[in-house]
Amino acid sequence: MRENAIGVFDSGVGGLTVAREIMNQLPNENIVYFGDTARVPYGSKSKDTIVTFSRQIVDFLRTKNVKAIVIACNTASALALETLEQECDIPIIGVIEPGARTAAKTTVNNKIGIIGTVATVNSGIYTQYLRNMKPDALVYSKACPLFCPLVEENWLYDSVTIEIAERYLGELKDYGVDTLILGCTHYPLLRHTIQKVMGDEVQLVNPAYETALKLKNVLEEKNLAKLTWTGNDHKFYVSDDADKFKVFANSILPCEVLETGYVNIEQYNG
Amino acid sequence: MRENAIGVFDSGVGGLTVAREIMNQLPNENIVYFGDTARVPYGSKSKDTIVTFSRQIVDFLRTKNVKAIVIACNTASALALETLEQECDIPIIGVIEPGARTAAKTTVNNKIGIIGTVATVNSGIYTQYLRNMKPDALVYSKACPLFCPLVEENWLYDSVTIEIAERYLGELKDYGVDTLILGCTHYPLLRHTIQKVMGDEVQLVNPAYETALKLKNVLEEKNLAKLTWTGNDHKFYVSDDADKFKVFANSILPCEVLETGYVNIEQYNG
Repeated sequence: MRENAIGVFDSGVGGLTVAREIMNQLPNENIVYFGDTARVPYGSKSKDTIVTFSRQIVDFLRTKNVKAIVIACNTASALALETLEQECDIPIIGVIEPGARTAAKTTVNNKIGIIGTVATVNSGIYTQYLRNMKPDALVYSKACPLFCPLVEENWLYDSVTIEIAERYLGELKDYGVDTLILGCTHYPLLRHTIQKVMGDEVQLVNPAYETALKLKNVLEEKNLAKLTWTGNDHKFYVSDDADKFKVFANSILPCEVLETGYVNIEQYNG
Repeated sequence: MRENAIGVFDSGVGGLTVAREIMNQLPNENIVYFGDTARVPYGSKSKDTIVTFSRQIVDFLRTKNVKAIVIACNTASALALETLEQECDIPIIGVIEPGARTAAKTTVNNKIGIIGTVATVNSGIYTQYLRNMKPDALVYSKACPLFCPLVEENWLYDSVTIEIAERYLGELKDYGVDTLILGCTHYPLLRHTIQKVMGDEVQLVNPAYETALKLKNVLEEKNLAKLTWTGNDHKFYVSDDADKFKVFANSILPCEVLETGYVNIEQYNG
């Protein structure tokens, strides 16, 4: 099992920011990445739909004999992690708990903000984790549905993006949060604009880093870590438009993505 | 056959603007509407994916014994109409040809603009139709990927929306188009902002109206029109989140939508 790869999935390309952290922190490991580009985005869809989509992806990843799975998507972590954990006999790791843990450790004034998709924010799951970790924390959350399309349009530092960010983040600033969780894997790409609007004194938390750390600990505990580096053989699969995916992947990953495979994801069990 | 319903489908709620036109112009007819809300949006996905999704929906609609199908979605009309027409023995009507025909009749200076999703604009299909109808027309097109999420955020008259519209539409204005096709079913909801930015002298073309008119002609030619009004029994189906759909449907349709059915669309043949 130690030699087997780690499955990582997201609704699209955003989860590559998590894959990148895993590559950096666990250089011995191989990754099988799946991006559900045919059905992206997940952020405005219902729990039932996200659970079905996630099950199909887990079913596909298991055909690749993965030893653990990382849900590199906040929406799927929020809505499907619990169900998948109950159904699977390999470790499944989401991004929510590690992100919440970092925020709980980071805050000084106990006021924590969360931004994410409508589905993630409505699930209330970050708040739930934070309340368990830090019962006296005041938690404020805000859905930012235009952030993902702005990232996809590549308007990362645009005046329009700043205006929209001011609109979305204004109330979190007014509440005086000193820590802000970037609760969607696209948002780290808007980091500079978000930091500018929130002010330098606010700490931004990117759950990707802590998720990779948690994965490392879980693999060590369960004697699943690959112990030596024998070269890397990462694999990338998508449900649509492999070329666009490759361009994005090559712009953010430390390895070159020469080939992506197409997967008819709907044929897997949901 | 005359008594059978008309199938209408879209990636989500946008096609309801087309359903509304059909209800107004063909009051005797019943509609079976399907919104693919689990896989919305279609606008940035590949041709293969859109053809597969559209085939599954046609397969579903045929279980309802529809006598004709309207593809109330510009992206699916652009990428899947030709294939579906070859595979089906009932009339299939898209929104592109009727929209192009109106624009060709409307323009005076022969400069026509088209706005739509990335997939619709890249398909070049509006341009193709317009060139056939009016070989001397100058056609300019522009993808506006942020318009749909702005509609979904309900920022219809917002200063941000005006700024984004100015950014997108600036070059079409510079070209001096006198006619602009709203090549996405969401865009009529941004009509006022688009008109303000383009100026009152530019004619906006909403393909929904002409599509309903074409449907009427096709039904009459093929002796498929329902001849008398016997009350209406429209049916609405979605692949996700029926409640959200109902709110939107009730805000724009002349009839009340009390019930929507959930369809597991992936089980149909693609």
